[in-house]
Amino acid sequence: MLAELAAFSDGDGNLTRLYLSPAHRAAADRVAAWMRDAGLDVGLDALGTVRGRLKPTAPGRAGNRRLLIGSHIDTVVNAGRYDGMLGVVAGILAVEEIRARGIELPFGVDVLAFGDEEGVRFPTTLVSSSAVAGCLVPSDLDARDADGIALRDALVAFGGDPDAASSAAYARDEALAYIEVHIEQGPVLEAEGLPLGVVTSIAGQSRFSVTVAGEAGHAGTVPMALRRDALAAGAAMMLAIEEVARAGGAHQMVATVGRLAARPGAVNVIPAEVVFTLDIRADADAPRLAAIAELQTRLQAIANDRGVSVTMEKFYESPTTPCAPRLQEAFAEAARDLGLAERRLASGAGHDGHALHHLTDVGMLFVRCRGGISHNPAEFAAIDDMGLAVEALIKAVERLAADAASSGDRT
Amino acid sequence: MLAELAAFSDGDGNLTRLYLSPAHRAAADRVAAWMRDAGLDVGLDALGTVRGRLKPTAPGRAGNRRLLIGSHIDTVVNAGRYDGMLGVVAGILAVEEIRARGIELPFGVDVLAFGDEEGVRFPTTLVSSSAVAGCLVPSDLDARDADGIALRDALVAFGGDPDAASSAAYARDEALAYIEVHIEQGPVLEAEGLPLGVVTSIAGQSRFSVTVAGEAGHAGTVPMALRRDALAAGAAMMLAIEEVARAGGAHQMVATVGRLAARPGAVNVIPAEVVFTLDIRADADAPRLAAIAELQTRLQAIANDRGVSVTMEKFYESPTTPCAPRLQEAFAEAARDLGLAERRLASGAGHDGHALHHLTDVGMLFVRCRGGISHNPAEFAAIDDMGLAVEALIKAVERLAADAASSGDRT
Repeated sequence: MLAELAAFSDGDGNLTRLYLSPAHRAAADRVAAWMRDAGLDVGLDALGTVRGRLKPTAPGRAGNRRLLIGSHIDTVVNAGRYDGMLGVVAGILAVEEIRARGIELPFGVDVLAFGDEEGVRFPTTLVSSSAVAGCLVPSDLDARDADGIALRDALVAFGGDPDAASSAAYARDEALAYIEVHIEQGPVLEAEGLPLGVVTSIAGQSRFSVTVAGEAGHAGTVPMALRRDALAAGAAMMLAIEEVARAGGAHQMVATVGRLAARPGAVNVIPAEVVFTLDIRADADAPRLAAIAELQTRLQAIANDRGVSVTMEKFYESPTTPCAPRLQEAFAEAARDLGLAERRLASGAGHDGHALHHLTDVGMLFVRCRGGISHNPAEFAAIDDMGLAVEALIKAVERLAADAASSGDRT
Repeated sequence: MLAELAAFSDGDGNLTRLYLSPAHRAAADRVAAWMRDAGLDVGLDALGTVRGRLKPTAPGRAGNRRLLIGSHIDTVVNAGRYDGMLGVVAGILAVEEIRARGIELPFGVDVLAFGDEEGVRFPTTLVSSSAVAGCLVPSDLDARDADGIALRDALVAFGGDPDAASSAAYARDEALAYIEVHIEQGPVLEAEGLPLGVVTSIAGQSRFSVTVAGEAGHAGTVPMALRRDALAAGAAMMLAIEEVARAGGAHQMVATVGRLAARPGAVNVIPAEVVFTLDIRADADAPRLAAIAELQTRLQAIANDRGVSVTMEKFYESPTTPCAPRLQEAFAEAARDLGLAERRLASGAGHDGHALHHLTDVGMLFVRCRGGISHNPAEFAAIDDMGLAVEALIKAVERLAADAASSGDRT
């Protein structure tokens, strides 16, 4: 199924499937067909999310509630075939198997295939899952892609309805929980020889543009002691950033300087200005914010020592999305049932769960991916690992059904 | 005179005067006219150097020998008006004054206005002074500018003669010495409150392209301990480079990372590859080469520690040009005579003396320049400082005359 989906691409010779593109439309149709084959009632919501609905097989006090299982079918440019798609396929297979095995559920199950998780085409992200969660920012509908096409117009062409965006939202008491299977996109499970991992939170992240201003000068004539070298100062700052992130290992802290520009950029001129990005993440907000405060102090101290100035301008921030303990436990128990070691880890990458958290409890299960490689044609997850994930997903749903039966409506 | 010369520009609204351009031709004509007014016999050599010749006024055993005083009249793009031009104007004024004061010289004096010191137009540098020194590389005549014009053709249009290049060379026993007045292009004299400085050597320099190769990864999902971040490794290397240069302070060592590119260059991707330039200079070859060897060891150690690779590719090297002790002493004595503190320093920038060293002894006198700023319209030297430089030049010539009279032909 993943190979079939990978054939729907906007790119030439690679897999690129952007929100509301022809390839997205074709992939959505295929997903809808699979959902129908699995016995689900299928619809497309106002923001383009494909929804396959399974009615409760043993309605009780939780009968009006729905368990949401989903992920996304859009991709980055030149993508792999697992990121997102695995979660949708796993949801369909799990529900198909639940029906085949005659497992009785006191709640309905909706499998959701979101369309805008990667945020590549428009300067927005999580538009489709935000609509489902009832937290869509209306102005996002007016965002335009690189060709000047407004999201709302692309949505109409796709078959959605921007004027009915609010119809995509679940009522708060309708959603039981949101759970998602996803490749890890990192190397931790592989390094530890584990096929599955239980996600504890989706890491919060802050992004800064850091500008260091020094003074240009002739590379041959300005003595080291009289220099105000913006790049040398930037180097000291990058090592401080790395040190602070390493110290936050207990919180799975990571910090990355991914982009750097040094001006004027001549072999024989001392750099006058350096601008670099800082991306910092952790499994909870407090340690991330504390690390940022520490970095502000340390970068300023380095700037003072070196006679340069530094400014840190925040251009993006998202808070940590905790995964609900009951959902973590459902996945952990499923893993134990499958004879697997229990491994809990935060997700450093963002996910649709970040939006769904506004609506209901969120849980995620990670699948080992080779080399930790993602957003790349080399992205790979083993068929056996994915099979275990589907099995764990089924067991987690059973566990939630048992919880609902024993403790009533809320769970 | 400097203001007048600054009006000859190939640029629009700034001073840009490239080798063999119309502005160079106009400036050469003006310089030739000034030389004639100063009583010199004027000619243009095969490579476009303007030469003004003063005959010995007291010919003796050194009568067939010539003292060369010069600098260049080409500029960088968007240049200042002192770099190069000051040395030519100072030479003309000194010779004019020598005649006016009736100072007797047992040798001739040639004032030389070179045309290709900056190396901006063609992928060559010091072509005109190399021809004078008899070390012109013939293939340089076939170099082409950005418009595809060959140097030899530009030379013909200018009034030179590429086929007579060897006629520009002095005989080795004809040249007594080469001396040059130049702005410091650095902040040392200003920082110490001194108008003049005696140059001990023109620093040798080596330039490398350093490539660090690590592994790209997701900024959120790869733990710090599993990263092979090329930019973080590059930061550690830049600080090692700075440390090694600082340790070489006794040799006026300077090292600069002026250009850096990090790939892929996305805010949320760990850099896989960093390429940066290293420019390293010192007042003598041995300490520079020792520092390079140390850096090769230290950069490799950093790479090993961090699981990345590093390669250092040398793309330019020029050896140190020592200034002759007798010429340093002549300038130092002149400074003392003028009541100035004696300050000796190496030139971190390259100069025509680098080529002239192949022919004869080289000496240089530096003039304080404001803020150490050069290659910039803000370049500035005070009229009083420049006046002192002309006076010191006259005194140095007198001293050389006295030496020649007392010790015979060679000096």
